[in-house]
Amino acid sequence: MKILVINPNSTEAVTRGIDEACAPLRMPGGPAIEAVTLKEGPPGIETQQHVDGVVPHLLNCISKNEAAAYVIACYSDPGLHSLREATKNPVLGISECGILTALTLGQKFGVIAILQKSIPRHLRYMGALGVMDRLAAELPVGVGVTELSDEAKTFGRMVDVGKRLREAHGADVIVMGCAGMARYRKPLQDAVGVPVVEPTQAAVVMAIGRVRLAWEASSN
Amino acid sequence: MKILVINPNSTEAVTRGIDEACAPLRMPGGPAIEAVTLKEGPPGIETQQHVDGVVPHLLNCISKNEAAAYVIACYSDPGLHSLREATKNPVLGISECGILTALTLGQKFGVIAILQKSIPRHLRYMGALGVMDRLAAELPVGVGVTELSDEAKTFGRMVDVGKRLREAHGADVIVMGCAGMARYRKPLQDAVGVPVVEPTQAAVVMAIGRVRLAWEASSN
Amino acid sequence: MKILVINPNSTEAVTRGIDEACAPLRMPGGPAIEAVTLKEGPPGIETQQHVDGVVPHLLNCISKNEAAAYVIACYSDPGLHSLREATKNPVLGISECGILTALTLGQKFGVIAILQKSIPRHLRYMGALGVMDRLAAELPVGVGVTELSDEAKTFGRMVDVGKRLREAHGADVIVMGCAGMARYRKPLQDAVGVPVVEPTQAAVVMAIGRVRLAWEASSN
Amino acid sequence: MKILVINPNSTEAVTRGIDEACAPLRMPGGPAIEAVTLKEGPPGIETQQHVDGVVPHLLNCISKNEAAAYVIACYSDPGLHSLREATKNPVLGISECGILTALTLGQKFGVIAILQKSIPRHLRYMGALGVMDRLAAELPVGVGVTELSDEAKTFGRMVDVGKRLREAHGADVIVMGCAGMARYRKPLQDAVGVPVVEPTQAAVVMAIGRVRLAWEASSN
Amino acid sequence: MKILVINPNSTEAVTRGIDEACAPLRMPGGPAIEAVTLKEGPPGIETQQHVDGVVPHLLNCISKNEAAAYVIACYSDPGLHSLREATKNPVLGISECGILTALTLGQKFGVIAILQKSIPRHLRYMGALGVMDRLAAELPVGVGVTELSDEAKTFGRMVDVGKRLREAHGADVIVMGCAGMARYRKPLQDAVGVPVVEPTQAAVVMAIGRVRLAWEASSN
Amino acid sequence: MKILVINPNSTEAVTRGIDEACAPLRMPGGPAIEAVTLKEGPPGIETQQHVDGVVPHLLNCISKNEAAAYVIACYSDPGLHSLREATKNPVLGISECGILTALTLGQKFGVIAILQKSIPRHLRYMGALGVMDRLAAELPVGVGVTELSDEAKTFGRMVDVGKRLREAHGADVIVMGCAGMARYRKPLQDAVGVPVVEPTQAAVVMAIGRVRLAWEASSN
Repeated sequence: MKILVINPNSTEAVTRGIDEACAPLRMPGGPAIEAVTLKEGPPGIETQQHVDGVVPHLLNCISKNEAAAYVIACYSDPGLHSLREATKNPVLGISECGILTALTLGQKFGVIAILQKSIPRHLRYMGALGVMDRLAAELPVGVGVTELSDEAKTFGRMVDVGKRLREAHGADVIVMGCAGMARYRKPLQDAVGVPVVEPTQAAVVMAIGRVRLAWEASSN
Repeated sequence: MKILVINPNSTEAVTRGIDEACAPLRMPGGPAIEAVTLKEGPPGIETQQHVDGVVPHLLNCISKNEAAAYVIACYSDPGLHSLREATKNPVLGISECGILTALTLGQKFGVIAILQKSIPRHLRYMGALGVMDRLAAELPVGVGVTELSDEAKTFGRMVDVGKRLREAHGADVIVMGCAGMARYRKPLQDAVGVPVVEPTQAAVVMAIGRVRLAWEASSN
Repeated sequence: MKILVINPNSTEAVTRGIDEACAPLRMPGGPAIEAVTLKEGPPGIETQQHVDGVVPHLLNCISKNEAAAYVIACYSDPGLHSLREATKNPVLGISECGILTALTLGQKFGVIAILQKSIPRHLRYMGALGVMDRLAAELPVGVGVTELSDEAKTFGRMVDVGKRLREAHGADVIVMGCAGMARYRKPLQDAVGVPVVEPTQAAVVMAIGRVRLAWEASSN
Repeated sequence: MKILVINPNSTEAVTRGIDEACAPLRMPGGPAIEAVTLKEGPPGIETQQHVDGVVPHLLNCISKNEAAAYVIACYSDPGLHSLREATKNPVLGISECGILTALTLGQKFGVIAILQKSIPRHLRYMGALGVMDRLAAELPVGVGVTELSDEAKTFGRMVDVGKRLREAHGADVIVMGCAGMARYRKPLQDAVGVPVVEPTQAAVVMAIGRVRLAWEASSN
Repeated sequence: MKILVINPNSTEAVTRGIDEACAPLRMPGGPAIEAVTLKEGPPGIETQQHVDGVVPHLLNCISKNEAAAYVIACYSDPGLHSLREATKNPVLGISECGILTALTLGQKFGVIAILQKSIPRHLRYMGALGVMDRLAAELPVGVGVTELSDEAKTFGRMVDVGKRLREAHGADVIVMGCAGMARYRKPLQDAVGVPVVEPTQAAVVMAIGRVRLAWEASSN
Repeated sequence: MKILVINPNSTEAVTRGIDEACAPLRMPGGPAIEAVTLKEGPPGIETQQHVDGVVPHLLNCISKNEAAAYVIACYSDPGLHSLREATKNPVLGISECGILTALTLGQKFGVIAILQKSIPRHLRYMGALGVMDRLAAELPVGVGVTELSDEAKTFGRMVDVGKRLREAHGADVIVMGCAGMARYRKPLQDAVGVPVVEPTQAAVVMAIGRVRLAWEASSN
């Protein structure tokens, strides 16, 4: 049994980061976890057009890659509900799973977004999730997805944003609003002083559960 | 590494059911999962006094039973936040994890409670969780925790309640509001036609993730 | 100046109905209102895959059809935010405009959906809109988009659903959850006894305003 | 057919500003739009007593001025629901229409109030509207209604407040919380960099639609 | 020191009922409690026009009747915020106090309204109060304020509505949505089996506290 | 008839402050009001373990001290629902009563907490109360319960926090988030310029009402 973690952007470095982030969740007797790149995707999912644009490719990807469960490893959860229609196997989004997991770690969650312009899109999504009363705030680091590999630049800004979420907005847990930030999770948590959720890991955990428990969607 | 699943009531049959429910989540290389009975607990947690009354015993239990993570296997999540203060290791409640998992399976969740009198307590808890906009309704089967083993009686009522949640209240996913209903999950799902979440399994899944990822609570 | 009303499904009869529904909003000195069919669309938008699947075609449609404003005439508002990124001209969805207009006509709005399976999708959308406290309920008539032309069958069911929304759920205004129901608006209102909002008309009204006022989106 | 836009305060300069703001919405074949001053009103509606005090005069005004639709051009929407009882013709308030229109232009709306003391009143109104999850914040410029004509003083403060709404509170659309600010809409939008809604225009747009569509309130 | 309880309708029988309801709250050393009739009011407050129409008379009433605190004894809380502006002494509404008191007696409150047409008005008010998540439902008995004295007719309907609130909507506490129902409180509670709040009593209680504690509104 | 106000911490100075705060509410013909110390409690209730830990002692306390009503004088309302199960007489918590009373004094309430670490616990409680839309913010003074008697230190910080709640968060009423702050109520209100609620007084007021009205919980 295999969990397929799909990076919907075409940046292989992000996929490699995702793959590494999944390592602790690979257990001898547990499901295989494979990270793949959606080659047809843009270098980073930064707009609603990017989100909507990758859906047919994601549908194609899962139709060609049989897996026991799928994780969409982009914080906008592109195509989540389309994919759920297309397969009886579980499909999980990292944004929903990251946020839901954060709700077990603090009472007010903050989100570190990459770009300001993604925040309204994420707010719509959190409204649909029905969790606005638990949101402290979402703030941007202000770098592009493809710049995330510039560690010096990125990490310093993430710490600044994390501290602002904590001190000015009352966040007691933080969700990383991007699939490509996994290596910063532990140092960010140490620097900010509140738990930090890496959303791809959160989603893969829930996928493992779904695979092991075989809770198929009902036939209805 | 071990996940300790604590049944806060003293009914061994419930613990055995929990233990069986955990079976699919035991993986050769994964954490051990052990279900224990809180002998000092009442036969069933049916009142707020029961909920508050087991907290010192739960605290005592975890202080004597070192584990990598703890799951409180009662749908009122007794002592959840006290236990989180008492240990740096993760503590998860089956009510929060059951509900949060349900949010990935449908847009409106219904809850099947055992007793009518538990519903206001659960509503307070769901208010604290901030998920009221996603709740379809919570309805009782009207049998006591200790009667749950009368399968003929219990299952028929659960199906009735499940169908009412679906048809009259619009639930498209159902959470079983008790740790002792695991064996009814699959037949209930088949009978009602919407996904059914067994909350102890949902919590153990999240505990596995926390154990594997070693997201300690921050030092702050 | 022209408002382009795009029917994202390929059923010409629906487009003709939309065109007729726009008639009262055509004023000699006002913007032209043109209804077009998205030929690449499915016969009816009934699933999330349909919703996501028409987005590239909608983007293509607006890039080839210069207009002062666009209205997406499908109750799932497919591609709304992608289109808003793609043009500086106003883009309005009939679901958002229908609901927002209903908020000026009653305190609790009910929605008549075509299909049961669309309701979770609509609920996600209403959650993103942040209007759940005003929702009485959404109930389905249970016929497909393409069957809507069977007047006898459709209208009777719509009245039943409308009365149920009013009497059992407290709706004091009703939104028609489909672009293809315009001709039933007045008789439905008379039969149910509460105001009924035809959402395409509601959206075209707001588009007229945006066109006349020239509130461009800011340069930011 | 005529839309009567009633300025409930007695300041003629405000009425003239409203009249000018309506100009783009006058279309050759469309409804006439006439702005009138409620001579019995106070110079500015600044308190709840002002709000409640103008209701009998507004009722008298509409009983003497037959119109196809009425717009109450004060951001507290005085008498809105009384007037709706008193006439079968549509009555729209600029606060509700301004806010509802803003919901189509951004995910978080900010409001620029004139006076601090009006904000609790507006918050009650937004609570009744059920849109609190979409509110970024409402902040005051701190000048009286009658001082609004001092352009140098007023505009600078509005820009400051607008920028604060955007930067500190995350507003991506702004509603002008007064009927007398129309001439600042475009420069304010340019200065702040997010769309700005002039609420009287927003309400007149919706009134045009109601007049053209002849959606009478139901006979019920 | 005196608490003035103002019945804003002109029906003396209602005032007498209010006066009797206040009896248990008159304590030798406590504030006097006096119930008066607003002679200028309508026989019953049944519409928004009634609500708005009594405000000037209420303002006049309190300006002529010095009291340490005022209670507005109509479930629509007419003029509440105008009166608060007009006096530094406390002013309390029976709707807000009835509902807030109910929140200490159950988790979901139901409201028994007199008339269907008052419910949207009350819903707006509860939205402004921010308590919609606690509302089970509000249902009407369907008799006019002046008919409330027909005990046989009224009480039977109230019991029916109360049971429906409990059984179908999950109310575990009920608020009587009218100042003229006090004599039915105890028998209604006995018949329905959940606590019943008489709102004038609830408001007078809070007024006693405010008078004794002398929490003046701040000078700001 | 007696109202027993139980200070669940063992600090007698706090009980004396509570006793003094109750003085204005003692009326010759009204219920006696007696403040007692829960000797088994910790010096201050600062953690969830403290909250849960005092419940059995509170249950024991009320079983041994017959009273017409009970007030739990700790801002975490420890044991509130357990005690309600254990006696048919009214039990009120100062947090719920303080907040509900604040809702009659302003539209946005701020809370001054003692410690940062109590805020998530209070947020859970306010979520259960369903009043999050009315909350401006809760901010800590950052001193321990036992340090509250250091007036110079404590009062200055409370004023700072109060002004921040008002100016940065829009609070127009403030609730003191501790039973031991009563003597600062009036000077704090004067310094901050918005009404300040002392929660024990608020709860005792409601208890007086319940005692006088004899609204027993229903037999159901």
